[in-house]
Amino acid sequence: MPSDDAVIDLLGALAYGELSAFDHLADDAGLAPTLAGRVRMSELAATEFGHYRQLADRITELGGTPAEAMAPFVAALETYHSITKPSTWLESVVKAYVGYGIAEDFYREVAAFVPDETGKLIRDVLTDAGRAEFAVREVQEAVAEQPSIAGRLALWGRRLVGEAISQTQHVLADRDSLMLLLVEGTGDLTGVAALITRITDRHGERMASLGMNE
Amino acid sequence: MPSDDAVIDLLGALAYGELSAFDHLADDAGLAPTLAGRVRMSELAATEFGHYRQLADRITELGGTPAEAMAPFVAALETYHSITKPSTWLESVVKAYVGYGIAEDFYREVAAFVPDETGKLIRDVLTDAGRAEFAVREVQEAVAEQPSIAGRLALWGRRLVGEAISQTQHVLADRDSLMLLLVEGTGDLTGVAALITRITDRHGERMASLGMNE
Repeated sequence: MPSDDAVIDLLGALAYGELSAFDHLADDAGLAPTLAGRVRMSELAATEFGHYRQLADRITELGGTPAEAMAPFVAALETYHSITKPSTWLESVVKAYVGYGIAEDFYREVAAFVPDETGKLIRDVLTDAGRAEFAVREVQEAVAEQPSIAGRLALWGRRLVGEAISQTQHVLADRDSLMLLLVEGTGDLTGVAALITRITDRHGERMASLGMNE
Repeated sequence: MPSDDAVIDLLGALAYGELSAFDHLADDAGLAPTLAGRVRMSELAATEFGHYRQLADRITELGGTPAEAMAPFVAALETYHSITKPSTWLESVVKAYVGYGIAEDFYREVAAFVPDETGKLIRDVLTDAGRAEFAVREVQEAVAEQPSIAGRLALWGRRLVGEAISQTQHVLADRDSLMLLLVEGTGDLTGVAALITRITDRHGERMASLGMNE
């Protein structure tokens, strides 16, 4: 079993992930071409805030302080968001689906390595929240109208996964507790490699569901 | 009893009020000097989105379309927010308390003039949500440290109430259904004047609770 510190570290990373997702999704809602689209993206943001609240409460229950637990992860997540700031509505939709999808896959894998109750909480907050259906519809409609944008959105999807992996590596290099959690949880470095392959495969499936092959 | 159209109009104004509150509170959270303050302001934003959802659902139940019902009120509310964009964290805190407080008082008064079930929904979504305690603490701490800011914040409070009244007048001048709802609900123009006095008095009480006399 991992140490309580490692669990609080993980919850801190996840909590700041949700808080920054709230912030950036709320911001991205301003790119929506319709009030209905703006409502949809705002709703995703509000859902992420609800998840933040659950994770922060668990940190407090475990004896931690949410602000302190999140602090080590602020820089990496804000770097990710500033490098992947959408400049169009469709980029924001793809990011809401693909970018958050990668993060969810990663955390769902890691949830298996922490005590049951916390693992269950993590799996519970990592719901798709209807993102897939929404993103697929928005992107397919746009590509049907203007097929030339498909290539640019496929590149955007690759950039999202690249930056997500890069920032995750920075965090793991900095936080021994999380690196240990991952290596011990998967068994060994081969296990880590298999985990990365699974996450990359699922990313490919999401891009394919948007009509884009990697 | 007011017409269904007037009720949908009122719900549309209120729904866009909540949606734009979500948007601007989420944005203002970025002004917070601490992660804890940012969380608190983000939480207010997420709460407003929950209220938006309830109001939009009621519009749908009454046979309306949320986006259409909100459309007539977008310009007035966005004008209000662009004129009262906070430039400091304390301005955003005073706006979250005083600005939204005025709106809540107004809608709570109007809730008495619409059918029971809708009136109850309006009163339910107009909860203070802990804003008062939060704002009073933040402002009192800041004024204790730096008494000179009290005067500037008092001016800011007056600007918020002035712009809120001005935009409400624009909306009422444009929407006969809402003007009728208000005049018929209060009884006559004397009743409208009494309503405005009550709202202004409550604004004064809020400013006083922040340690600022009008």
